[in-house]
Amino acid sequence: MTTNEKIMYRCLELAGKGAGYVSPNPLVGCVIAKNGKIIAEGYHKKFGSNHAEINAINSAIKKGVNLKGAELYVNLEPCSHYGKTPPCVDKIIQHKISKVIIGIKDPNSLISGKGIKKLKQNGVRVKTGVLVNECRELNRFFLKFVKTGVPYVTIKTAQTLDGKIADKNYNSKWISSIQSRKLVHRLRRVFDAVLIGKKTLEIDNPSLTVRHVKGRNPYRIVIDRRLTLSLNKKIFSDIFRHKTIVITSAKAGKKKINDFEKRNIKVIMCKTKNSLIDLKDALKKLASLGITSILVEGGAITSSEFLKNKLADAMMLFIAPKIMGDGINAFNITVNLSRFRKINFHHFKKDILISVKK
Amino acid sequence: MTTNEKIMYRCLELAGKGAGYVSPNPLVGCVIAKNGKIIAEGYHKKFGSNHAEINAINSAIKKGVNLKGAELYVNLEPCSHYGKTPPCVDKIIQHKISKVIIGIKDPNSLISGKGIKKLKQNGVRVKTGVLVNECRELNRFFLKFVKTGVPYVTIKTAQTLDGKIADKNYNSKWISSIQSRKLVHRLRRVFDAVLIGKKTLEIDNPSLTVRHVKGRNPYRIVIDRRLTLSLNKKIFSDIFRHKTIVITSAKAGKKKINDFEKRNIKVIMCKTKNSLIDLKDALKKLASLGITSILVEGGAITSSEFLKNKLADAMMLFIAPKIMGDGINAFNITVNLSRFRKINFHHFKKDILISVKK
Repeated sequence: MTTNEKIMYRCLELAGKGAGYVSPNPLVGCVIAKNGKIIAEGYHKKFGSNHAEINAINSAIKKGVNLKGAELYVNLEPCSHYGKTPPCVDKIIQHKISKVIIGIKDPNSLISGKGIKKLKQNGVRVKTGVLVNECRELNRFFLKFVKTGVPYVTIKTAQTLDGKIADKNYNSKWISSIQSRKLVHRLRRVFDAVLIGKKTLEIDNPSLTVRHVKGRNPYRIVIDRRLTLSLNKKIFSDIFRHKTIVITSAKAGKKKINDFEKRNIKVIMCKTKNSLIDLKDALKKLASLGITSILVEGGAITSSEFLKNKLADAMMLFIAPKIMGDGINAFNITVNLSRFRKINFHHFKKDILISVKK
Repeated sequence: MTTNEKIMYRCLELAGKGAGYVSPNPLVGCVIAKNGKIIAEGYHKKFGSNHAEINAINSAIKKGVNLKGAELYVNLEPCSHYGKTPPCVDKIIQHKISKVIIGIKDPNSLISGKGIKKLKQNGVRVKTGVLVNECRELNRFFLKFVKTGVPYVTIKTAQTLDGKIADKNYNSKWISSIQSRKLVHRLRRVFDAVLIGKKTLEIDNPSLTVRHVKGRNPYRIVIDRRLTLSLNKKIFSDIFRHKTIVITSAKAGKKKINDFEKRNIKVIMCKTKNSLIDLKDALKKLASLGITSILVEGGAITSSEFLKNKLADAMMLFIAPKIMGDGINAFNITVNLSRFRKINFHHFKKDILISVKK
């Protein structure tokens, strides 16, 4: 590993600390080095607050370090435009930092390369393309969102070895172990939203909150084309209901829509396709709310519908070492997962996790 | 790792070379050391031929080594009785070997410890219990067979991620990759027999031979309670048909039984239980033919029947990264695999193998 790579790994580590709090901004970490020694670090902590570069520069200044001739490492191209905060490149130039080492360029085609250009025009040396795959992996939600205008979608299922998500009576409580459930809660705190189908809400009445680990709750999205779900369900009546979103269609009754909105629950009207919600339309509308990532938590109809429409970027299958025989199938469609490039698997104390990614 | 363990690993390595050829005998490897240096090796190569200890001693003699004061390592207690060959302990004593290091004792309760006793009575020092788990693992077929009188049964399935072994039309050709099929052929050459149900034979008409790798063919067993299978099937008509065994019941027609036997195909009559072949009875009868290990290669009815009757010692599930949705289920029963202690998994280029063992 080169020195550039080592320091870029540190940037990614720092960047990761913002997961769950910076969306729809990217995860960014920044390290400043001088004469081969790290002198300051920073990361983007929260949407709307200082960028990583500014936090690192401020940290150096606080320590009384002269930044002239220093090298700044950052996993994403520094911004050159006025957003919620002033442009980072101006600050870099102002402090006479001599070199900037960048992981990947800004994915927004309108501004990509502009930050780099301005730095070079002002005599700052620039190197790009360090740990490109790792940088893309960390910001896969942001990159998908910016490039396509739809959120990154991961389908999560918990099933037996023979692909059943519940027994014949829809009892699924025992499918996965506490270790797996903890991991699901860790996912919920970094995904902007979790999504389920109407049937899962009716049968399981889940909270969809983060409980087994510390962290913030995600948006909770349920698809209900005719809006017939009872308002008594947990996600419509608990104290987090302002983070609940219902996706419905013109088939929904106006009074029912009002009932939901009165409770501060957002109702999104979507197109239908073959008598089902048009998921592409739903994803675009969710993206317009700043949702960059969605964890689909079932059931079979919802998961299959995302796969059928090629709207899934990744899948995480938790497999319990049990055989069910007769039961509820995890999927109702045929998919060759070879279009998902990467397949990984982990072995917990009890379950196996197979994860596939595009 | 101690020196004893290091040399015992070499014994196990040598022993493994006999896999597929020594059954119903155990796999045994032997190493002779003198003054801390390995001077001779041997293993049991083929049923009815010299035991490992004799091969190692002969190898030392051939080299002109005086065995007085040497140490002999062997993964299983040396025999003290006349079988197909004279007792190994007599040979050890005759050559004045000073110490014998043994992996595990003989599992046969009638003779267990007798070899050790005779060695000690003749002034040979004995140490037992080196790499006990590894020794048991290597000879799991033999140990199960000797202790219980039934063969070791491994259930093998090839399925999609959602537990389907074929599509609705029973087309299963594409379930697993060439890498997985090669491994199955490597299994076939070490298991004494492979076993399938009637339906699998009817639909797939498999050869059940070893083709993708080098090695000997196993016995091929099919269950057909009424003996209605056509004699045109490959396993009844190819040149290996003398290694085909049909398990049937009193429901079978006498003429049909004759037709099979005329072709040198063994027909075994078994009891029935709930209108199905009594698998325990079948296993005992197969054991009486010297079959110590069986690889059950499907389908759902047969695999499930073995699991239901708790007759499976291990399972190997090859999982292709595909989702079928609608299709033929791998199993038709509910089993909690937590009674299988060990769960391992391997990742091939394309498939995943989950293996569980008691």
